[in-house]
Amino acid sequence: MPVTLLEQLIDALRILPGVGQKTAQRMAYHVLERERDGGRRLSETLASAIERIGHCTRCRDFSETETCATCASASRDGHQLCAVESPADRLAIEQATGYRGLYYVLQGRLSPLDGIGPAELGLDRLARRLAEGGVSELIIATNPTVEGEATAHYLAQLARQHGVRPSRLAHGVPLGGELEYVDRGTLSHAFGSRGDMP
Amino acid sequence: MPVTLLEQLIDALRILPGVGQKTAQRMAYHVLERERDGGRRLSETLASAIERIGHCTRCRDFSETETCATCASASRDGHQLCAVESPADRLAIEQATGYRGLYYVLQGRLSPLDGIGPAELGLDRLARRLAEGGVSELIIATNPTVEGEATAHYLAQLARQHGVRPSRLAHGVPLGGELEYVDRGTLSHAFGSRGDMP
Repeated sequence: MPVTLLEQLIDALRILPGVGQKTAQRMAYHVLERERDGGRRLSETLASAIERIGHCTRCRDFSETETCATCASASRDGHQLCAVESPADRLAIEQATGYRGLYYVLQGRLSPLDGIGPAELGLDRLARRLAEGGVSELIIATNPTVEGEATAHYLAQLARQHGVRPSRLAHGVPLGGELEYVDRGTLSHAFGSRGDMP
Repeated sequence: MPVTLLEQLIDALRILPGVGQKTAQRMAYHVLERERDGGRRLSETLASAIERIGHCTRCRDFSETETCATCASASRDGHQLCAVESPADRLAIEQATGYRGLYYVLQGRLSPLDGIGPAELGLDRLARRLAEGGVSELIIATNPTVEGEATAHYLAQLARQHGVRPSRLAHGVPLGGELEYVDRGTLSHAFGSRGDMP
């Protein structure tokens, strides 16, 4: 049990991902020695972020407001909807691509063993949205893991039921990767899905 | 400039050592997705630690009280005083060795170029303490860097002026290290300081 305030601080820091005892110690000492102002700001920002950041009612991404800035924007194309597992995935796509459509953040993936089914991912709400019409393509950008693929199949079925075209991010050899080090599954898939040279 | 609260949180997390943009992002998402309770506790503990943790008036280590628990303890041996650069070094020695004496935390090392002289390290207070008598050995455990060695020499002089025996942690080949990969300086030192086999 942490007794002193310093031990309590080290303990509290360990909720951060990838932070163990040693790193938490280093962080606590660093803040107390050199970053007291920054530490105060972190404490306040953390409290108000936890207090005020909820989920967008349209896309389930993090948002301070009822509808997030992307969903509220008039310049985004409502015909395309991109389903991602997490806000971090959404951000990665937003930063890497020129995509101008909207997003749907599942906040997880189908995982019956962990008790995560369609209801937990808000798929009923997604179904209602597809039923409303207006969406012509559902871009499925779940992770290429077993659970992500299962989720992708489920989403594709859901889209087809509502007359929406489902699409999936391409699989293949990553840019800058070396064939020698690419795993067999990826290489086999990339070989099978080869395209004509432009 | 961070605009949304989420961006502000990511920005605030970057004061932590070793945390860049990507890690801060991951931490913010993790806390908001799965650790809101832990995040609240971290915010509160951080604020009160910054508010209440100051320095022990005896040894300059972090302490919530005027005198830290080690300095106030009746079971520690006041004849030995161990000088370290930082609270983290103090903790490392406390955890690794069976040392039962007291500590003196310099909170830095002599570094004239950075404007850190004897006054900044509280060496006047250390001198008064050595002058009081009662201390017979000053164990100098500054880091084996250029600045740490300079500080060690200064401390050794200070100790001798007050009739206190200065000692220094042994240098040599680290346990479990391989000679092939030990740096030249260390190996040369270890060879020169070789001792008889017990």
